[in-house]
Amino acid sequence: MAAPFTEDELIARCFAPVAGPGALGLRDDAALLTPPEGHDLVATTDALVAGVHFFAQDPAAEIARKALRVNVSDLAAKGADPLGFLLALALPPDVTAEWLMEFSRGLGEDAASYGIQLLGGDTVKTPGPLTISVTALGSVPRGRMVPRTGARAGDRLYVSGTIGDAAIGLQLRLGKGPEGLSDSARARLLERYLVPRPRHALRHAMRDFASGGMDVSDGLVGDLTKMLRVSSVSARIHLADAPMSNAAREAIALDAALFDIAVTGGDDYELLASVPPGGAAAFEAAASAAGVPVACIGEAIAGEAAPVFIGRDGVPKKFARGSFSHF
Amino acid sequence: MAAPFTEDELIARCFAPVAGPGALGLRDDAALLTPPEGHDLVATTDALVAGVHFFAQDPAAEIARKALRVNVSDLAAKGADPLGFLLALALPPDVTAEWLMEFSRGLGEDAASYGIQLLGGDTVKTPGPLTISVTALGSVPRGRMVPRTGARAGDRLYVSGTIGDAAIGLQLRLGKGPEGLSDSARARLLERYLVPRPRHALRHAMRDFASGGMDVSDGLVGDLTKMLRVSSVSARIHLADAPMSNAAREAIALDAALFDIAVTGGDDYELLASVPPGGAAAFEAAASAAGVPVACIGEAIAGEAAPVFIGRDGVPKKFARGSFSHF
Repeated sequence: MAAPFTEDELIARCFAPVAGPGALGLRDDAALLTPPEGHDLVATTDALVAGVHFFAQDPAAEIARKALRVNVSDLAAKGADPLGFLLALALPPDVTAEWLMEFSRGLGEDAASYGIQLLGGDTVKTPGPLTISVTALGSVPRGRMVPRTGARAGDRLYVSGTIGDAAIGLQLRLGKGPEGLSDSARARLLERYLVPRPRHALRHAMRDFASGGMDVSDGLVGDLTKMLRVSSVSARIHLADAPMSNAAREAIALDAALFDIAVTGGDDYELLASVPPGGAAAFEAAASAAGVPVACIGEAIAGEAAPVFIGRDGVPKKFARGSFSHF
Repeated sequence: MAAPFTEDELIARCFAPVAGPGALGLRDDAALLTPPEGHDLVATTDALVAGVHFFAQDPAAEIARKALRVNVSDLAAKGADPLGFLLALALPPDVTAEWLMEFSRGLGEDAASYGIQLLGGDTVKTPGPLTISVTALGSVPRGRMVPRTGARAGDRLYVSGTIGDAAIGLQLRLGKGPEGLSDSARARLLERYLVPRPRHALRHAMRDFASGGMDVSDGLVGDLTKMLRVSSVSARIHLADAPMSNAAREAIALDAALFDIAVTGGDDYELLASVPPGGAAAFEAAASAAGVPVACIGEAIAGEAAPVFIGRDGVPKKFARGSFSHF
């Protein structure tokens, strides 16, 4: 290893403590998992590259958390209970023992929090930037996965938590934030960018009540447009109803252009849920019981026209870029 | 996308044709898989980096095949039937439409050959080298996965196919091969390095007869040492019995130093099987029926001493580097 540990040391010191029973001590070619009877398996992969999806100088533990949490967010959107994950890690030559120990500490803490065991992985060297691919596996009772294609005309469209904090946080991180922001607002927005808070707690409300769902990773406007398009429905969305934190509102009050960034920027890791009207009250109650605020931002309507997004001035908006794209 | 396709185009033109029904058209956050009743799931991940695990200028279709096949090899070693795979692809800025079309063509052909559907994935940009992570999922009847830890004293130790072709092929690729090698031998050795031939056909013989198994990806000496160590057994191995192709024999006849490279170099993607003596004849018959040659290279013996490798001169050998390491 160009890095400070041999492969055996890396496994023993960093990853074995995070591994679950299916990992077979991380000493086999493969992991073993017995899916719960009568359940479907849900699988998702997200790759993160230093300098593209996070800053290389971010704390190692927070990088690990982000890599795992973006996948936990996808499982939650599908109504799935986490089972385990596999980690492919391409390490640049300058990685240190301390970095690896911190990375695995953050990973282990989050794995425990979300009840998702490390099943296996692969660690390789790269002459390029740190690259992390996580494949997460979860389960749902058979036939109960919440599909992205499931929104139906008449469904209420909900979004969890608050939108735009991470996108404004990234602006601050890039030195482009507004003058005069309070320290507490700044700290909150930066923190939301650094470490997503996936809506794991909402997963059962999703599978019990949502006909369609996805997580908001590439911006509210773009992701909602995607979900409605693949569901073959349309909508009128009042963006003034998009839930925002006090910190985001404070930033937008200082620079109105941040509003568009908030509703189109990425890294929210909130959930979009399309809920039939008969289930709306029960969905709201279940979300409340789970401690996750949800806000209704519109209703799906028949037709395949692109959704109309009404701005804060009451006028339909066009976005130059509806969605954050990692490409 | 910095690259020639938008994400939608990339999915539609390259990956949708490779996707299976569980991929939900590659339009969801996650894939859906119903594992066969009464089966365990086997999961494995391998990451490949351009310039580390393959040459960036290799044909795109062959790079795709290698990325998938190294995972198919792991499933075969565990006795697992392939179900599906997820692909995380980090693309450098200079990737072209032609490259992506060729990559997906190679991937699709192999996915069909091995009966493994593309379930989902993630495509991101990287300023670094092309990086490919594949997570493959397979299934075995419950409790029947072949563990690496399963070798027992008295077991016969088998290796499939031929050892060393790829390692000698890499030497040729690096311009370090022997003078005077025939064109046909050169072509065969180079081809074995470029594209592994995983022993997919041997998977049922493995699960029916092997007590322990793994694939040989990091060199025969190193990988067999690993398998015996985690199984808490030892062995005496006659390296003269390691099966070699005529092409490898021809190269070694020209440069005797290539023998050590053949038995310690990586990228064989053959299978090691530890088979109880009572099942040895049946294992050999099953392998023969599957069209895969297997050779017995020794017997596991009681004790936790490191295995002894007897060289071609009849004297126990020490290897400076028992195993190829990607670190």
